[in-house]
Amino acid sequence: MGKLVFVGLGLWDEYDLTIRGLEEARKADKIYAEFYTSVMGGLNLKNLEELIGKKIFILSRKDIEEDPHESILLDASERNIVLLVAGDPLISTTHVDLRLRAVEKGIDTRIIHAPSILSAAPSVCGLANYKFGRSVSIPFPEDNYFPESPYLVVRKNRFRGLHTLVFLDIKADMSRYMTVNEGLEFLIHFDRKKSRPVLKDAILVGVARVGSPEPLVYAGYVEDLISFNFGPPPHILIVTGKLHFKEAEALVKLAGAPKKILER
Amino acid sequence: MGKLVFVGLGLWDEYDLTIRGLEEARKADKIYAEFYTSVMGGLNLKNLEELIGKKIFILSRKDIEEDPHESILLDASERNIVLLVAGDPLISTTHVDLRLRAVEKGIDTRIIHAPSILSAAPSVCGLANYKFGRSVSIPFPEDNYFPESPYLVVRKNRFRGLHTLVFLDIKADMSRYMTVNEGLEFLIHFDRKKSRPVLKDAILVGVARVGSPEPLVYAGYVEDLISFNFGPPPHILIVTGKLHFKEAEALVKLAGAPKKILER
Repeated sequence: MGKLVFVGLGLWDEYDLTIRGLEEARKADKIYAEFYTSVMGGLNLKNLEELIGKKIFILSRKDIEEDPHESILLDASERNIVLLVAGDPLISTTHVDLRLRAVEKGIDTRIIHAPSILSAAPSVCGLANYKFGRSVSIPFPEDNYFPESPYLVVRKNRFRGLHTLVFLDIKADMSRYMTVNEGLEFLIHFDRKKSRPVLKDAILVGVARVGSPEPLVYAGYVEDLISFNFGPPPHILIVTGKLHFKEAEALVKLAGAPKKILER
Repeated sequence: MGKLVFVGLGLWDEYDLTIRGLEEARKADKIYAEFYTSVMGGLNLKNLEELIGKKIFILSRKDIEEDPHESILLDASERNIVLLVAGDPLISTTHVDLRLRAVEKGIDTRIIHAPSILSAAPSVCGLANYKFGRSVSIPFPEDNYFPESPYLVVRKNRFRGLHTLVFLDIKADMSRYMTVNEGLEFLIHFDRKKSRPVLKDAILVGVARVGSPEPLVYAGYVEDLISFNFGPPPHILIVTGKLHFKEAEALVKLAGAPKKILER
């Protein structure tokens, strides 16, 4: 009897793997990886293969979601299979679905956790995790698709004094990553139409390359961030709600936020 | 010039450390650790010291929060200091505060991220992270302290169809950890007084020992969980809101939730 082990790769490069994840990969009969749900800015596949000492088979979205032959699951029903996934695994619905299909076939599954942007983004800025409301994703707008719903989540959180973690889209073919600036523009598009805008006096935090040796965290008002160059991906945006004094202090000292926010 | 590196230890034991975290610890001139903000059920200090190849100095809450001599910061102003912390570091305000004090003294700081319960708890149950509202902590009740506020957060999230991640208290001297059952009792105490209770028909998920080789996830109604034995710590509780079909399916298949939730 085989098993399917979801091993998280973490945030930035191959050294975000945990010792347990590395051991599990070294023990595997075969290793798959998918990189279409998340960006790992510093990952080098060759280095990762050398570290583990095994070849890694890269899967496309189609391989995981539409594979009619269920070849991963066939493999996992007989052998010890590891699937490497960026971040903490099973955050994406795609992987939950794969796990459920494995369980249905009586295949043992296991999760090896890894660093996730869900905890890393708040912690790198000094924001309190219990002050975050619901998080949201901003999609790349398309001809018939420019939804207001992500903005409305941010707006509701703002009214309640809560922060919002705003995930920025990645094109399925990985050809483009949404920047903090594009994400902000998306939100402002809706905010400026409101009689009671919520972003005008909001402190926003742009975060780039979390987990790398030099993550960038920059906080300020819309006008401070809108044309600021955050550099290479991945990016994430936080729209803050009501800041506790300690949070404001952290944003000033760690993220260059305007000092006047300490007076509020 | 020294630096202060916050290295996350992750969820369960010494093998949750990332490769980067291990390297950073091996390079350090001196290693501190604190274990009072979080429980790591499988951690063995001796093994961790052997893995790193160095002695680890354990700090108490007082050492970090009230140390009048700021000995860690004195150390870090001249040497390369690593502070090992359970989970993803800087989630606790205590560490943010220490980091800010370091920054004020001109000491370089760095964060090495690690697995966190914030992403691991939703992912181990198959719940979608963007459907979580604000999270909350339940404190051990004391003679003059039995606040309704944690319940009210759960209640508001339920009304909005959102899930709540409910952190359970740890006694400062680590003598006691709140169980899922105690956390539930705390919430029910307030819920049963309401004309419109929100927990009666809620699906609750108790999660124990996430990150260990055998995490326990058990989902059901109040009556299913209230006297269920979740075993050794750490525990965490999730009060679900409106379940997506896929989430309900995951709770049935992974957590033993009653099958009738698939019909809703």
